[in-house]
Amino acid sequence: MIIIGEKINSTRGAVRAAIERRDAGPLAALAQKQREAGADYIDVNAGMFLDGEAESLEWLVGVAQDATDAPLSLDSPNATALRRGLRAVRAGRNGKPLINSITDEKARYDAVLPLIKEFDTSVIALCMDDSGMPERAEDRIIIAERLIEKLTGEGMRPEDIFIDPMVRPIGTGSGYGIAALETIREVKRRRPEVHIACGLSNVSYGIPARKLMNRTFLVAAIAAGMDGAILDPLDRELMASLYAGEALLGIDEYCAGYLSKFREGALDV
Amino acid sequence: MIIIGEKINSTRGAVRAAIERRDAGPLAALAQKQREAGADYIDVNAGMFLDGEAESLEWLVGVAQDATDAPLSLDSPNATALRRGLRAVRAGRNGKPLINSITDEKARYDAVLPLIKEFDTSVIALCMDDSGMPERAEDRIIIAERLIEKLTGEGMRPEDIFIDPMVRPIGTGSGYGIAALETIREVKRRRPEVHIACGLSNVSYGIPARKLMNRTFLVAAIAAGMDGAILDPLDRELMASLYAGEALLGIDEYCAGYLSKFREGALDV
Repeated sequence: MIIIGEKINSTRGAVRAAIERRDAGPLAALAQKQREAGADYIDVNAGMFLDGEAESLEWLVGVAQDATDAPLSLDSPNATALRRGLRAVRAGRNGKPLINSITDEKARYDAVLPLIKEFDTSVIALCMDDSGMPERAEDRIIIAERLIEKLTGEGMRPEDIFIDPMVRPIGTGSGYGIAALETIREVKRRRPEVHIACGLSNVSYGIPARKLMNRTFLVAAIAAGMDGAILDPLDRELMASLYAGEALLGIDEYCAGYLSKFREGALDV
Repeated sequence: MIIIGEKINSTRGAVRAAIERRDAGPLAALAQKQREAGADYIDVNAGMFLDGEAESLEWLVGVAQDATDAPLSLDSPNATALRRGLRAVRAGRNGKPLINSITDEKARYDAVLPLIKEFDTSVIALCMDDSGMPERAEDRIIIAERLIEKLTGEGMRPEDIFIDPMVRPIGTGSGYGIAALETIREVKRRRPEVHIACGLSNVSYGIPARKLMNRTFLVAAIAAGMDGAILDPLDRELMASLYAGEALLGIDEYCAGYLSKFREGALDV
């Protein structure tokens, strides 16, 4: 499971305040804690700053890459902000950055694609296009295939592409959980070398006991073939579900990781 | 989800002691608590008594059917004990009993089949035959199909059959979780009118944090199409995972059950 640590996000009040103050300390600590908890990427988001997003994202990139050796996930739909952030990425220790995200909307695709090529990044590709976010799994699968075709046609390696099935809140439609899981299963069946990753929290938007629902979705999604996730690696119960899911699915051979996490006390939830 | 409450089992020390003393009180309470917690069937097992199993099972049937209006699941491989237990089942309030279980082992099949017909029961059919418990999903699916063919050929309605994929402990083989989930998925795809039900605890035999693994397996199995389970309905975390899984999969339409369980405090785990 490729874990993209989601906590350095300007929609969170304390993060926003630290960015405003250009107070690197708490954000560096958040990067380090997530890395220690198993994050493969550190996501950085400055989307709440609107006009100041590009400058704030550049600053965040500097803070996060100084704090750990994890590659960064630059989280913005805005090509100008992404470009400024990517310019601040140092070659070397932190590895290939990830753009979060591209879609098959024409304007966004055309704006973000050159950045992938210029800065040699991986990318999260969302299953949506100019007709919006599809309701049905079939339509998501079509968009996923089209994005994979186009991106590999531009020279991307399939393993640098993360398809995000775009989970809609199940509180707004009983079929949205199944639609997401079917998309995951079918895209992974057709293109096993492409990664599948998504955020978890959308699924539970508007319903109670969200953390319970998010970790339930995580287990079902791992079982369907999802091999990445944008999540909070400091959520112990969520991570315990992840370790159990990997052991159950045989991804964690001989349950070695599960047993090791048990010895660390991480399964005591 | 059809819940078969597993707690009245003679392998549990307190239950065994109560059966030995013919002390109905605590066992009746256990039946009632499970029923209130959502059990559709109350399982009764007196297998620890060897020679005395038939007599003990008969007594247990009486206790459990007096305690609640739930149908009973008579849990024994032993046709003599099952017959004595089934004779004690009163027609009426508690509904059609369930035999737990038959297999495709010739001697066991031939001994249990007449009881299904004579007493008009439902049955749990385990995916094993005289060559043992198969390792691979393909072989389990073949046995499941054969059992369904034979039992419906004898006049059983498909909806009275519960296929148990027979989960092996993942601590003894990394592929056993996937084998169980694939069996569930494929049997349900081929025979949607047949139920799939299994015990959860085998999956975690020999590894730590068993309850975490059991509820992780439950979610993955629901996502694969399992619609029944032999479980402890008094395990709050397990039941919360079940409610979340049903809402996620759209089985619980409009999340109505989930919201109602939240209001009862049952998701506060």
